[in-house]
Amino acid sequence: MGKGARTRATILTAAVETACLGGFDGLNLKPLADRVGMTKSGLYAHFGSKEALQVATLEHAAELFQARVVAPAKTEPAGLPRLEGVFERWLDWPANAGLPGNCPFFAGVVEFDDCDGAVRERLVRLFRDFRQVVEQLVASAVRHGHLRPGTDPGQFAHELLALRYAHHWAQGFMRDPAALARTQAAFARLAGRAPRELAAGGVR
Amino acid sequence: MGKGARTRATILTAAVETACLGGFDGLNLKPLADRVGMTKSGLYAHFGSKEALQVATLEHAAELFQARVVAPAKTEPAGLPRLEGVFERWLDWPANAGLPGNCPFFAGVVEFDDCDGAVRERLVRLFRDFRQVVEQLVASAVRHGHLRPGTDPGQFAHELLALRYAHHWAQGFMRDPAALARTQAAFARLAGRAPRELAAGGVR
Repeated sequence: MGKGARTRATILTAAVETACLGGFDGLNLKPLADRVGMTKSGLYAHFGSKEALQVATLEHAAELFQARVVAPAKTEPAGLPRLEGVFERWLDWPANAGLPGNCPFFAGVVEFDDCDGAVRERLVRLFRDFRQVVEQLVASAVRHGHLRPGTDPGQFAHELLALRYAHHWAQGFMRDPAALARTQAAFARLAGRAPRELAAGGVR
Repeated sequence: MGKGARTRATILTAAVETACLGGFDGLNLKPLADRVGMTKSGLYAHFGSKEALQVATLEHAAELFQARVVAPAKTEPAGLPRLEGVFERWLDWPANAGLPGNCPFFAGVVEFDDCDGAVRERLVRLFRDFRQVVEQLVASAVRHGHLRPGTDPGQFAHELLALRYAHHWAQGFMRDPAALARTQAAFARLAGRAPRELAAGGVR
């Protein structure tokens, strides 16, 4: 990695941390430049605009997510175990990736709801790509006989995101000690299993 | 209503609209004073601080929510129809209450995740109160034989919030035309009914 690429990586690591704590709107060039020990014009030379910095930060967060949440599925047994693994890693992925605060993608959803532009477009595409990954895992679990025949992967993926969102709310905001147990019971119900089966075997 | 109370109501209506569009952090005294045609010191006399204004705005939004989402249940048949009615009204309550933008409570969740203080405390209490309402409706639906015996009201309420959150994401952020159909199918599954039963009767 050349010096330029190393500097860029340093900036983006700090930028993802900033987004986890205060959202993408908090990604201003001056405080970020201060944080990584650069001048604002030096940082400007790397990205050119706040929007370009936000998009690059999203890309960097997406790479971390891919590496931490999705990629490990390859070494898990095919079917439901892979889907469960992805869901479990998704639940606390910022902490597992060494990030402070909360999922930056959920922060982006609130910030760019009504703001058309490059950041929103990129974030929508990230969610679509991940939903497609989940749908493929669901379809595979159906083929392996781990989920009921006729399960609609799109509907299942929608409901899985619902559980992740509620977990974000219950654990991150409400600080509910029962959050994880509720989320896992809901996953078990979604997968068509009794909670007892789950406790005995499946989800870690 | 005296002049002071009328002025306060005018300010809070504008404040809730502002929170729907830009969150509670966007509730600054100066722009809000400009919007309602007051001086900043005149507005300051009503609330004293930005935090007090944010809490009062939350209270006002909670009153609207109660009136628009919860109160109409009283005139619905007891049991599942009331629960369904509350859920359906919850889905698009800001628009039905004449508000622009999105649910201000969900905006607050992201903004006050890590910010301890009066606003966070009030918002946590609002969610707890509403969850209690939902749990009572679930328990009633169980007693009426509309939901499976043994249904856990706390778990059901958690999963209902999950569906509402996913709806917020799918409709508000992803602008997915299938959002409402997915949400209603998920509700039907949660209530233990086949989607066809739902289409034929229950949810509007």
